[in-house]
Amino acid sequence: MNHIDDKGRVAMVDVGDKPIVSRKAVARAVIRLQNATLELIYAGGVAKGDVLATARIAAINAAKRTDELIPLCHQIPLNSVKIEFEPLEEGAGLAIIATVDADWKTGVEMEALLACSVAALTIYDMCKAVDENMCITDLKLVEKTKLAVRTAPQKG
Amino acid sequence: MNHIDDKGRVAMVDVGDKPIVSRKAVARAVIRLQNATLELIYAGGVAKGDVLATARIAAINAAKRTDELIPLCHQIPLNSVKIEFEPLEEGAGLAIIATVDADWKTGVEMEALLACSVAALTIYDMCKAVDENMCITDLKLVEKTKLAVRTAPQKG
Amino acid sequence: MNHIDDKGRVAMVDVGDKPIVSRKAVARAVIRLQNATLELIYAGGVAKGDVLATARIAAINAAKRTDELIPLCHQIPLNSVKIEFEPLEEGAGLAIIATVDADWKTGVEMEALLACSVAALTIYDMCKAVDENMCITDLKLVEKTKLAVRTAPQKG
Amino acid sequence: MNHIDDKGRVAMVDVGDKPIVSRKAVARAVIRLQNATLELIYAGGVAKGDVLATARIAAINAAKRTDELIPLCHQIPLNSVKIEFEPLEEGAGLAIIATVDADWKTGVEMEALLACSVAALTIYDMCKAVDENMCITDLKLVEKTKLAVRTAPQKG
Amino acid sequence: MNHIDDKGRVAMVDVGDKPIVSRKAVARAVIRLQNATLELIYAGGVAKGDVLATARIAAINAAKRTDELIPLCHQIPLNSVKIEFEPLEEGAGLAIIATVDADWKTGVEMEALLACSVAALTIYDMCKAVDENMCITDLKLVEKTKLAVRTAPQKG
Amino acid sequence: MNHIDDKGRVAMVDVGDKPIVSRKAVARAVIRLQNATLELIYAGGVAKGDVLATARIAAINAAKRTDELIPLCHQIPLNSVKIEFEPLEEGAGLAIIATVDADWKTGVEMEALLACSVAALTIYDMCKAVDENMCITDLKLVEKTKLAVRTAPQKG
Repeated sequence: MNHIDDKGRVAMVDVGDKPIVSRKAVARAVIRLQNATLELIYAGGVAKGDVLATARIAAINAAKRTDELIPLCHQIPLNSVKIEFEPLEEGAGLAIIATVDADWKTGVEMEALLACSVAALTIYDMCKAVDENMCITDLKLVEKTKLAVRTAPQKG
Repeated sequence: MNHIDDKGRVAMVDVGDKPIVSRKAVARAVIRLQNATLELIYAGGVAKGDVLATARIAAINAAKRTDELIPLCHQIPLNSVKIEFEPLEEGAGLAIIATVDADWKTGVEMEALLACSVAALTIYDMCKAVDENMCITDLKLVEKTKLAVRTAPQKG
Repeated sequence: MNHIDDKGRVAMVDVGDKPIVSRKAVARAVIRLQNATLELIYAGGVAKGDVLATARIAAINAAKRTDELIPLCHQIPLNSVKIEFEPLEEGAGLAIIATVDADWKTGVEMEALLACSVAALTIYDMCKAVDENMCITDLKLVEKTKLAVRTAPQKG
Repeated sequence: MNHIDDKGRVAMVDVGDKPIVSRKAVARAVIRLQNATLELIYAGGVAKGDVLATARIAAINAAKRTDELIPLCHQIPLNSVKIEFEPLEEGAGLAIIATVDADWKTGVEMEALLACSVAALTIYDMCKAVDENMCITDLKLVEKTKLAVRTAPQKG
Repeated sequence: MNHIDDKGRVAMVDVGDKPIVSRKAVARAVIRLQNATLELIYAGGVAKGDVLATARIAAINAAKRTDELIPLCHQIPLNSVKIEFEPLEEGAGLAIIATVDADWKTGVEMEALLACSVAALTIYDMCKAVDENMCITDLKLVEKTKLAVRTAPQKG
Repeated sequence: MNHIDDKGRVAMVDVGDKPIVSRKAVARAVIRLQNATLELIYAGGVAKGDVLATARIAAINAAKRTDELIPLCHQIPLNSVKIEFEPLEEGAGLAIIATVDADWKTGVEMEALLACSVAALTIYDMCKAVDENMCITDLKLVEKTKLAVRTAPQKG
């Protein structure tokens, strides 16, 4: 069990001996909401774009601050955060997919999971006046990879 | 639809005309994990306590910083945040219940929901080395009340 | 000169004896950019909305965190933050107007000014690949009022 | 023992039933350093002022963010933070005195103590190239008062 | 237009394939204020130094936190931040010059621009009791360079 | 005197020419408290663990955010933070030892010192209802090393 040192005390995993590797994680969550709410979100004009734009920006911000929220996470400078939304095929709701990339000593799955959570909560916050029964569900890791070795960073 | 002003633009709801009321919100989430993981969390010694203690502290910290994470939330000085954990009756997993209280112009459901999310993510982070298939699910608001009028705050 | 105590040392102004009053501040800034850039920002589709939506959200976030950025500002719980954009009548550019409201012991002009700055910088950041000569200018306070007395906040 | 609920679990003290009272706390710490270092800090020109100015600003910033650093502290909007420095009468060193004021439901001693700590650490950071044996010591609460009742805040 | 992905949605630019290069940016802003205010800032004793010292420290702090304020900025560990002030040759006012350095995958112009803004706003905050007509203006990028290749970082 | 540029103005030390080296710092502080308080902290059940667990987590969080609290510190991505507690051999109290590791251009002593301070303040906060005379003392650097050269980070 990581994060627990040999005397049972909480501690950060020491990543000092790990090489810097290109890492990627994809997480996915679902927010269940009424069809009418979904239509409002997508329905014309700026309003539609703004709900999802707000959620996207909140998610990117959260991903960058994962180490302040999840106590034993390391500070990781991210290469990119991408947030996508897809209406569910069955039932009313929206899937949120977060893809995070970094070249670092440890993986970025917590960053992707937190980004999904905060995107979903932002949608919840913006729609809660019109939909009282939303539920955020099925948040899990979809993919975690150490990418092929890139050429080493060089200056110039 | 709140948070969308009359021209479709994102804006904070103006709470300037709302009275200060005692408010309470309760949210609940579930983290599904293997029985073996659950036993590890609860099994003897300090290690057990520390997983849940870490999650509790992370959740309290997150609740206090909701307005930094969820873009249109107001800054709300909280009276208390309480985090409880309950093993699920059916299936392997843990329920997380967050109760948040404040005397303020607007409700604290986002604070309770975010606290649940961050508690769950912290458990995920601490157990991910031993359990690769965890899932965070069923995050929703359980209760939201404006409490009975308290006597007005007075100095002295 | 406020913020300087009687021995010339930096200190926060003590607002302990000031009553809680409804306060409002409006600030305005201009970002000068090429007409082509302005057209790109406003031109169809989601892209347009997103530049201004991102700037709006960044500005709201910054206003709430003014006391972390401007060292001697007090923590002020805001009632609302509203960000508006207007194309300039003369020359190419965009005016940014931030309106901030709070019921508190001290004014919110720094919150409005910081919101304008961060909105402008966000636009700059998003357009800098296509416009190398942007300039942020004429940031000033437009209005500062102590609003008429509202009925005192009451519980219930 | 506060902060520990009836089942031994960490929780914030619920301050919901406490009245808003004018509160003040004074804390004091000592940083021991060589006389030569002290002379450098105080010696002429801007350099002198800047070490203490930097420490003062860092301390004010930290006081405002106490609830982010000390997990079970409440968010408290402060009326004022004042930082004073006094050379020790005996031995080489500097006393740091932090005075914090707020009208709130709970006291501000942690704010004053954290402000002292961060002021001392900032001095340490700025002097560590010239003094390798500094020590920060005797950090304690000097005074904690609930001030006499002020007239209730009124709008207008 | 960077920051807009192929479907018009906001996203961080992926810097994963960019090499780590030594980068530098210089930004400049002007704060216009009355001659009397400028004299107060510069006039003898500690008071003078403290206004500018406070602004400098606020600017350095802001530069380090650019990615929290400007939504699509990357987290960049900075090598240095330097803030300089120069009285204007014509008219009353102060120029603020921020120079920021980092070895990273993307440039630091937003860090330099934000540092200038926050320095100017801090001066505004500290002088607003004596000068009601200040204006922050002409914020722009002055220089942006990828510096010559340094020898690659090595351990030891 | 570092942090003071050639004109006496505060500035960050430029670490641009420093190589990335494996660095470690150990700091130690003491919190003096009554024997009865110490027994309460260590006495059975979860309560005991929770005081120290809370302090540990607060300290880890603080270490990661050192550059936000100590104005001239650089942002440093840490490899690990470890917090240990030892009852004093003489007198009533607890020693707090913080060990911090990073591969970076500058040392991590401020991170270790701040972690000790915040751990001590967290214990203070949690025990202040039962012990009114606590004192935090003897905070100093115990060890600072540039570790032997590790093999250069490589991808793959």
